[in-house]
Amino acid sequence: MKERRIPKETIDRLPLYLRCLDKLIEQGEENISSENFSNRLNLNSAQVRKDLSYFGDFGKRGVGYETKKLASKIRTILNLDQKWKMALVGVGNIGSALLTYSGFDRRVFEVTMAFDRNPQLIGQEIDGVEVEDVSTVSDRIAEENVKLGIIAVPASSAQKVAEMLVKGGVTGLLNFAPTLLDLPEDVQLAQVDITKELEQLVYYL
Amino acid sequence: MKERRIPKETIDRLPLYLRCLDKLIEQGEENISSENFSNRLNLNSAQVRKDLSYFGDFGKRGVGYETKKLASKIRTILNLDQKWKMALVGVGNIGSALLTYSGFDRRVFEVTMAFDRNPQLIGQEIDGVEVEDVSTVSDRIAEENVKLGIIAVPASSAQKVAEMLVKGGVTGLLNFAPTLLDLPEDVQLAQVDITKELEQLVYYL
Repeated sequence: MKERRIPKETIDRLPLYLRCLDKLIEQGEENISSENFSNRLNLNSAQVRKDLSYFGDFGKRGVGYETKKLASKIRTILNLDQKWKMALVGVGNIGSALLTYSGFDRRVFEVTMAFDRNPQLIGQEIDGVEVEDVSTVSDRIAEENVKLGIIAVPASSAQKVAEMLVKGGVTGLLNFAPTLLDLPEDVQLAQVDITKELEQLVYYL
Repeated sequence: MKERRIPKETIDRLPLYLRCLDKLIEQGEENISSENFSNRLNLNSAQVRKDLSYFGDFGKRGVGYETKKLASKIRTILNLDQKWKMALVGVGNIGSALLTYSGFDRRVFEVTMAFDRNPQLIGQEIDGVEVEDVSTVSDRIAEENVKLGIIAVPASSAQKVAEMLVKGGVTGLLNFAPTLLDLPEDVQLAQVDITKELEQLVYYL
């Protein structure tokens, strides 16, 4: 059950607060003020206070927020207090990098299945995950009840793969293919578009 | 020289228009209406018309926009009508995937230098690029006049690497390390944070 409706802009910033809190916790900091947040995250402090107001009344005057409590609250809000199994389609360069990627918090996100169409890859084991035939992906992810899919195939196959994943019951997709996907409305999409990031970046140079 | 000031939200959407236009051009479409754009990109059509108004008066009543002309105009605005050499630091899983990544348009973006601290990688050639010693990165990128850097090292080394790149004259950074970087104000940063994307995604599932 969700709390009072949190705007998308705030949700999008929650992972940043979390990253900042995790760093502070690692450094042994027990509290953080909203001013400190706003400096570290480059946000204005009114915005920070408004964002934090959605998480309940955690702030203490002159002390700020308890780092551990706030981090735990944000994890609960974002549904990060559970394990998300992920199915990866496309075990090329990017795909195999993701299979061995050390940036995921494996208590939360783990690639548990991998698929490709290349017969030389099918049957191989990468970091404990056996590569399966992509033609079986819909059935297999339904069997394993996997709800998150990662698309790391070339742009030309991405739409077809997305449809196979959705057919298998996936409700969230992380797409690395530089193409626009046409998806049912109840499927959530996140796009990691490296070229787009570069294109936005060089405008300002 | 820039045209009349284009808001950041519009700039951020330009790569999406471009992606859409490139697809249409490939399919032989010569024109696109703003309604068609808004359907394909899931934006409201007033927003699309407003975005497009910054590119000059390209639209024709009943016909829409000429795909090739508009794509070329957007490329000019985004500074994509030149070649951007990039220096990659960190030739681990993600880094080596980027070296061989086929999603870049190599007429625009090319990784021309790569650096690592691992002696077993230094001197190796990957996709035509020789891996160099990271301790030389500031001098080497200054020599080669590289202005774009990609950080693909673990979070714990990212800040140090960023500083070395900035010292060498880089003004734009694409960071794959899941950490917040503290940079001079004149350095542009784009962050590819895979975990953040996943965290934002699962909130809605």
